[in-house]
Amino acid sequence: LSSKLPWVGTTIFTVMSKLASDTGAINLSQGFPGFDCSPELVALVEKYMKTGFNQYAPMTGVPVLREALAQKTELLYGVSYHPETEVTVTSGATEALFAAIMAVIRPGDEAIVFEPAYDSYIPAIELNGGIPVLVTLTPPAYAIDWTEVGRKITDKTRLIVVNTPQNPTGRVWTADDLAQLAALVKDRDIWIVSDEVYEHIRFDGRPHLSLATHPVLQERTFVCGSFGKTFHVTGWKIGYCLAPKELSVEFRKIHQYLTFSTITPVQYALADYLKNPVHYETLPDFYERKRNLFLEILRGSRFQFTPTEGSFFQTVSYRAITDEPDYDLAIRLTKEIGVASIPVSVFYRQKNDYNILRFCFAKDDEVLLQAGERLQRL
Amino acid sequence: LSSKLPWVGTTIFTVMSKLASDTGAINLSQGFPGFDCSPELVALVEKYMKTGFNQYAPMTGVPVLREALAQKTELLYGVSYHPETEVTVTSGATEALFAAIMAVIRPGDEAIVFEPAYDSYIPAIELNGGIPVLVTLTPPAYAIDWTEVGRKITDKTRLIVVNTPQNPTGRVWTADDLAQLAALVKDRDIWIVSDEVYEHIRFDGRPHLSLATHPVLQERTFVCGSFGKTFHVTGWKIGYCLAPKELSVEFRKIHQYLTFSTITPVQYALADYLKNPVHYETLPDFYERKRNLFLEILRGSRFQFTPTEGSFFQTVSYRAITDEPDYDLAIRLTKEIGVASIPVSVFYRQKNDYNILRFCFAKDDEVLLQAGERLQRL
Ligand SMILES: CSCCC(=O)C(=O)O
Ligand SMILES: CSCCC(=O)C(=O)O
Repeated sequence: LSSKLPWVGTTIFTVMSKLASDTGAINLSQGFPGFDCSPELVALVEKYMKTGFNQYAPMTGVPVLREALAQKTELLYGVSYHPETEVTVTSGATEALFAAIMAVIRPGDEAIVFEPAYDSYIPAIELNGGIPVLVTLTPPAYAIDWTEVGRKITDKTRLIVVNTPQNPTGRVWTADDLAQLAALVKDRDIWIVSDEVYEHIRFDGRPHLSLATHPVLQERTFVCGSFGKTFHVTGWKIGYCLAPKELSVEFRKIHQYLTFSTITPVQYALADYLKNPVHYETLPDFYERKRNLFLEILRGSRFQFTPTEGSFFQTVSYRAITDEPDYDLAIRLTKEIGVASIPVSVFYRQKNDYNILRFCFAKDDEVLLQAGERLQRL
Repeated sequence: LSSKLPWVGTTIFTVMSKLASDTGAINLSQGFPGFDCSPELVALVEKYMKTGFNQYAPMTGVPVLREALAQKTELLYGVSYHPETEVTVTSGATEALFAAIMAVIRPGDEAIVFEPAYDSYIPAIELNGGIPVLVTLTPPAYAIDWTEVGRKITDKTRLIVVNTPQNPTGRVWTADDLAQLAALVKDRDIWIVSDEVYEHIRFDGRPHLSLATHPVLQERTFVCGSFGKTFHVTGWKIGYCLAPKELSVEFRKIHQYLTFSTITPVQYALADYLKNPVHYETLPDFYERKRNLFLEILRGSRFQFTPTEGSFFQTVSYRAITDEPDYDLAIRLTKEIGVASIPVSVFYRQKNDYNILRFCFAKDDEVLLQAGERLQRL
């Protein structure tokens, strides 16, 4: 069987998490919380599992969850999506991203991707015969050169993939970014897939500017979100897609054949849990405290950094310490000092190595302090 | 946004289940149990959710579940799959089918599909640029003409989709079917996706002949299975794919970007639950009793039928009663006598109407008896 993705090996998340567990290192590599979700949320799942909510959900998601998502979006962003026709529950944000990309991309279409990029965007584009057109962002600012983006848009461009807050850089899009993008796509047949899984994790009072908040963007955007990142249940694999009706119709046709539907009792539980805004409104402060603790630690080390604007990742430059390739250093730090990280070169198609590592600070304070001690030894 | 699947409307399962619920009809349309899963299984999920198994599972599935699946396959079919490299847990059998088809099909490839066919196979082939080549099976026997299959295999054939026990006909493949297929694909670059979600639901002492039991087939087959159908939890959306290492490598590359992984605590719970063979060994008898009850009922009606060999579906011919189109009759029976079914024409590409309806008998006895009373009035 000849491979459709010959260059794909074992994902870095698997490699580093396995190495961390084999060596007993502190795992700040793969992005997941080191603490558990609320017992209240588990109790809700239990309630629905025990009372017979165990058969197929509607293909689009259970109505109460779609309604709760629409209400949250209205409340936070002032944007209305119709729960019946514009909100779809998926088996994780990964599925939402894949289905949205598949709904848009045909063989030969071009798709603009900002790199460093989360590792699923480019394979999803290529599996659908699309051609990724890369806009490379570089440290320390990872600023977008909008003139370059404009130059890269051609008659074949059908898709732009956006990720804000961005993994791995933590960069949060500004009103200017939204306006620049809107000016470029206005009046063109270009759709947008916006990965907003870290919407509730941004710092220093920065708002999350969902692409849905800009009318020119909203009408052409699939907003992909995640419950896993927000409620500390990355293993539950439940996400969603918000998109105008015309886009949702096509999205749902794909979703129907990818997974059909998503675990019913968990959907009901999340609907109840989501109705209380305190469950997500407290998240920025919760993670800002962790970020600040981690930054405090880094200040005592020889790493250089700009405080991350959002997501639960902090990237650091190790140029002042060594000029090893980032992949080698990530492996070595895991084995020698017992802290696992992600080498940021893996997020670049050509594996550009700017000597940057990514750490996940979604961990208990003791774990962060212990990791800090080890990192300060370097 | 131009549609990739312009001919796909609302699925019949959604249409009929909604009509049943709007009209208060007994829903024997969409295939899901009318009774609940075992409280023991729910208690296991609860246990794992309460003890911190809520973050990402490994991309391939948690090791204990892969091992339990390999053990079950060895025990039941005498076939060894290596849990590390040949067993992958998916977000439902639907995802497994889609990923397997996507791993094989490239634009222009031909894929043989036996119709009546479950509704996801053809869209999955076409979304990947493949060309479905149909082999049409007709009532009452739905026998496969292997000479015809041989004629339809060309240099472009890359895939054959098999489904045993078959939805909607209930037909179970025989040793002769396996041998005929093996003779046709031997020494060719043809892969097989085998939908075996009803493996534990077959009657009158008939064995389930997994395609994995035939060496020529095994080495080229992706066997797709489902926990939902077996443990009465269709809403949990967890399935799996068994395939030789070379095939699993490609399968996993797709799965990684479709959904990445599947709900962790449920995987652990299923691993424990699967270890006790009684949980699936009792299933044929359990459903045979229900089938027999339903057949008893049908004998008192004017429907004609051959007892279904497997699956929880019974198809019936209504030729002796009316010559209405099957879709119209299914709607009318729902509204007028209060029993919802599936018109079998929807499983044929050209909507061939042989005046057949499909009933799901995975319901409580009282419900079947009540439905029976209504059907006998016709
Ligand atoms: C799906 S595993 C990767 C988790 C994640 O989002 C990350 O570490 O970047
Ligand atoms: C995924 S909804 C369809 C359920 C089913 O297998 C059927 O009714 O045929």
